[in-house]
Amino acid sequence: MTQARIGLVGLGVMGANLSLNIAEKGFPVAVYNRTHSVTDAFIASAGALAERVIPTKSYEDLVASLARPRAIILLVKAGAPVDAVIADLEPLLEEGDMIIDAGNADFHDTRRREAALRAQGLNFFGMGISGGEEGARHGPSIMVGGDPASYAAIRDILEAIAARHDGVPCAAHFGPDGAGHFVKTVHNGIEYADMQMIAEIYGILRDGAGRSPAQIGHLFEGWDKGPLKSYLVEITGRVLQTTDPETDLPMVEMIVDSAGQKGTGRWTAIEAIRLGQSPSAIEAAVAARAWSSERDTRAAGAALFGDLPAEAGTVPPEEDLEQALLAAKLIAYDQGFGILAAASEAFDWGIDLATAAEVWREGCIIRSALLDDMAGAIREGLPQGRLIFAPRFAGLMRAGAVALRRVVAYGACAGLPLPALANALAYFDTMRQARGTTDLVQAQRDFFGAHGFDRVDGGTNRHGPWAGPVSHS
Amino acid sequence: MTQARIGLVGLGVMGANLSLNIAEKGFPVAVYNRTHSVTDAFIASAGALAERVIPTKSYEDLVASLARPRAIILLVKAGAPVDAVIADLEPLLEEGDMIIDAGNADFHDTRRREAALRAQGLNFFGMGISGGEEGARHGPSIMVGGDPASYAAIRDILEAIAARHDGVPCAAHFGPDGAGHFVKTVHNGIEYADMQMIAEIYGILRDGAGRSPAQIGHLFEGWDKGPLKSYLVEITGRVLQTTDPETDLPMVEMIVDSAGQKGTGRWTAIEAIRLGQSPSAIEAAVAARAWSSERDTRAAGAALFGDLPAEAGTVPPEEDLEQALLAAKLIAYDQGFGILAAASEAFDWGIDLATAAEVWREGCIIRSALLDDMAGAIREGLPQGRLIFAPRFAGLMRAGAVALRRVVAYGACAGLPLPALANALAYFDTMRQARGTTDLVQAQRDFFGAHGFDRVDGGTNRHGPWAGPVSHS
Repeated sequence: MTQARIGLVGLGVMGANLSLNIAEKGFPVAVYNRTHSVTDAFIASAGALAERVIPTKSYEDLVASLARPRAIILLVKAGAPVDAVIADLEPLLEEGDMIIDAGNADFHDTRRREAALRAQGLNFFGMGISGGEEGARHGPSIMVGGDPASYAAIRDILEAIAARHDGVPCAAHFGPDGAGHFVKTVHNGIEYADMQMIAEIYGILRDGAGRSPAQIGHLFEGWDKGPLKSYLVEITGRVLQTTDPETDLPMVEMIVDSAGQKGTGRWTAIEAIRLGQSPSAIEAAVAARAWSSERDTRAAGAALFGDLPAEAGTVPPEEDLEQALLAAKLIAYDQGFGILAAASEAFDWGIDLATAAEVWREGCIIRSALLDDMAGAIREGLPQGRLIFAPRFAGLMRAGAVALRRVVAYGACAGLPLPALANALAYFDTMRQARGTTDLVQAQRDFFGAHGFDRVDGGTNRHGPWAGPVSHS
Repeated sequence: MTQARIGLVGLGVMGANLSLNIAEKGFPVAVYNRTHSVTDAFIASAGALAERVIPTKSYEDLVASLARPRAIILLVKAGAPVDAVIADLEPLLEEGDMIIDAGNADFHDTRRREAALRAQGLNFFGMGISGGEEGARHGPSIMVGGDPASYAAIRDILEAIAARHDGVPCAAHFGPDGAGHFVKTVHNGIEYADMQMIAEIYGILRDGAGRSPAQIGHLFEGWDKGPLKSYLVEITGRVLQTTDPETDLPMVEMIVDSAGQKGTGRWTAIEAIRLGQSPSAIEAAVAARAWSSERDTRAAGAALFGDLPAEAGTVPPEEDLEQALLAAKLIAYDQGFGILAAASEAFDWGIDLATAAEVWREGCIIRSALLDDMAGAIREGLPQGRLIFAPRFAGLMRAGAVALRRVVAYGACAGLPLPALANALAYFDTMRQARGTTDLVQAQRDFFGAHGFDRVDGGTNRHGPWAGPVSHS
C-alpha cells in the first residue's frame, strides 16, 4: 500500500478543496473526518483524483498511512476542537512528526500549542490560508509559522498547491510558532479595511449621488482596470451588478446590512493596540461591522435624527473617489505592515514584510496589483518603516490625499458616515505634523497628575508652574 | 493604644494624601511604607493630623494596629507589586479581613485576586480613585468593586473622604470583583477622549486660526462658564494662559508633544472591542497618543508632505467649535456608558450607569456640569440604551451635529488631523442610518467565502447567485 506524503483532518469545504488541490499536484494524501459518511461522500465525488486520496476511518489508520516524518494538516473549527484533535493525535505520533493547524487560529493559541508539542518532541505549525473555497481548490495564499528546519519537509507540497505570481509560489515560512497565523490575522484585518473603504465609496455613490447598484458596479468594474485593480474591487463590480432572481431587484438591496466581526479582524485591532500601534483604518472597519449589527439602534437613530439637514456640498467627481480610495487603501496597508513589524519585534519572529506582500499578490482575498509595488517598496527600504513614505508611493499619496480631503469633507457635510476613510486621512495628517497638539495633553496631565513632561529645549520629566488649586465644577 | 479603623500601604503621592484625607475626616489610620524613612517624613509633615496616624514599620505591626475586621488600602504600583504585598499580608490576616487595592489595576487582575483571596476567607476590593493628588487629599471620586455585604464595613470612611455633589458623596459600590476598577478604567478612557477632543479644537485655533495659546486659553476660560463647564476645560484655559518662567514663552509651546498611552486608556479600547463595542472616540484618543510618541516619523512625514496645499475652507466660528466639542463629548460618553453596560452584562456586575455618572460629578478628572444631566437622562431611561438618544440631549445633538459637520469638514480640508472628532461624527451618522452599507460587505463575504446573509424580506443564511469564478488579479 502506498504511503501518503501528507494527512488531512476535517473534510469541510476548505479541507475537501485543499485535499483535492494536494492530490491534483501529485501528492498522495490521507484524509480523515469524524463523521465517516462525509469521508465516503468526498471520495465518491473526487473523480480521478480519488486514486491519490487514502480515506481513513480512525486516527490510527490515518497515522499508519503516512510516510515519516508524518505531517497532518488540521482544518477543523478554530478553538477547542483543534485542542481536541491534537490530544487524540499526539499519543500516536513519533518524534519529528508534524501537526499543521490550517484554521484561523488566534496566534496566542498557536504559540501555546507549539510550545506544548515541542516539549513532546513534535512539530506544530500554524498555517494561515487565504482565498476562500476557490483558493483552497486551485491555489491559496499560504502563511506558515513553526520550526524553520522542519518546514523543509512540507515546503514542496505547500509551494505546489499555492497560488503563483509570475511563477513564484504564494507560500512562505514567516518565522517560529505563531508568525504564520499572525500574518494571516493581519491579512484579514487589512481585508476588513479594504472592504469597509469600498463600502463607504459605495455609500457616497448610492446615498449621495443617487446611483443604482448596477451603475456603481459598472464604475467599480472600470476601476478594476486601473491602479485599484484587485480581487475585492472586481467582485464588488460583480456583486453590485447581480440581480436577485426572486425579485428581479438588485441583489445587494435584498441583503440585510449587518455583518459579523468576531475573530481575525478583532484580534488584529486588539493585538495592535497592545503593541502600541493603533491601526485606525482597521479599527474603523471592525467598528463599522460591530455597529452594523445594532439594527434596532440605527432604526431608532434614523427616527430621531434622520431628518437632520445636510450641509452644502457636492458629490466629489469619480476621479476623486478613485484616488481617495487608492490613498486610503495604501494607508490601511501602511498600518497593517506597521503591526507586522511591531509584532515581529515583540515576539522575535523575524517576519520579512516584503515576503508578506509577495505572498499576498495572488490567491488571497486582498490580492491586488498594488501588492507587487508594495513588496518592491519594502525591499527598497521604507523611510521610518512607513509604507506611505516610500518614494514610489509619494506621488500617489500627494494626489490621493487631496482627493481624500474632498471626499471626507463631503461625507461630513452630507451626513454620510465614512469611518475608515476619515480615519485614514486623520492618520495621514497626523503623520505629516512635526508638531502636533499633544503638548496640551501633556500640560493637562502634568497639571492634574504631576505626570511630568519633556521640554523642547531639552529638559526631561519637568513640571509646569501651574498656579493654585482649581475650583470644583 | 488606639486601634486604627483602616490601614494603608504605600505612602507615595496618592497614598500620603489619601491618608491625610482619612485622618482629617476623623478616622484613625495606620500607615506602612516599605522604605521606613518615607514613613517618618510623612508623619513629620502631617502636622496636627499626625495624632490620628499610626506609623508602622512591619506588616505585623500594621495588622496588629487595626480593629477587626481589618481593612487595608494598597496604594502601590499596579501589577506585580500588588501581588507581592498581598502575598506578604495574606498569612497575617483572618477571616473577614479586607484588602482594598486602590491603584489603577487591570480589572482582570482584580477578578483573579478577588477569587484567590475569597478562597482564603478574605475580602478583596478593587477601588478606583480619580482626582489626582488634589482629589486624594480633599475629596476624590471613588469607585468600588467587591463583596457587597463587606462593603458596609468601610462605606462610612469612603463616603467621608470622597468628593460631594450637593451633599451626596461621590463614592459607590458598583458590583462584585472587578466592577469598581472597570468603572475607573472606563472613566479614564472617557478622559482620554475628552482631552483629545479639546486638543483637536486647540489645534484648529492654533494652526487654522493662528491664535496664540493665551487667546485660546481665554476662549476655553469663557467656555467654562457655559455648557462645556468642566474641570478639563477649566484647566485647559489655565495651562494655555501659563507662561514659562524660563523663557517667558507660552508654557505649552515648551512642552514636547508626545504622550504615553499605556494602561487604562488602552485597556478600555481592548476590552470594548472584545465585548463587541467599538468606542471609536476613545480608540482615536488612544491612537493619537500612540502616534504622538512617533516624533521622528512625524518629522519625516512633515518633510515629505508638509507642503501639501489645503483645500479651500474657512475656520468655523467659535460657536461652532463650542457646539461641536459639546456634541462630540456627549458621543464619547455615549460610547463609554455603552462599554459599561456591555461589561456589566458580560461579567454579571449589575453596574448602575446612573450611579457611575453621579459618582463622576465631582472629584474626578472628567467631572463636569454635563454629568448631572447624564445621570438624569439615564434614570429617565435611555432609548436603545444610547445616551445620545436621550430626550433631554436631542436638542443639543441636533445643533451640535451640524456644528460638528462643519468642524470635521474644515479639518479635512485644512489638513488638520481631528481623529476623535471625526470618529464621533462617523459614529453619530452611522447610528442614524437605518440602512447602512454593510449589505455590500455581506455580499462580498458571501461571494468569496460563502458566509451567507439574511434577506430583507425574511430569508436567513441565504446565498447570492454570484456567477462563475473570478480571474486572478
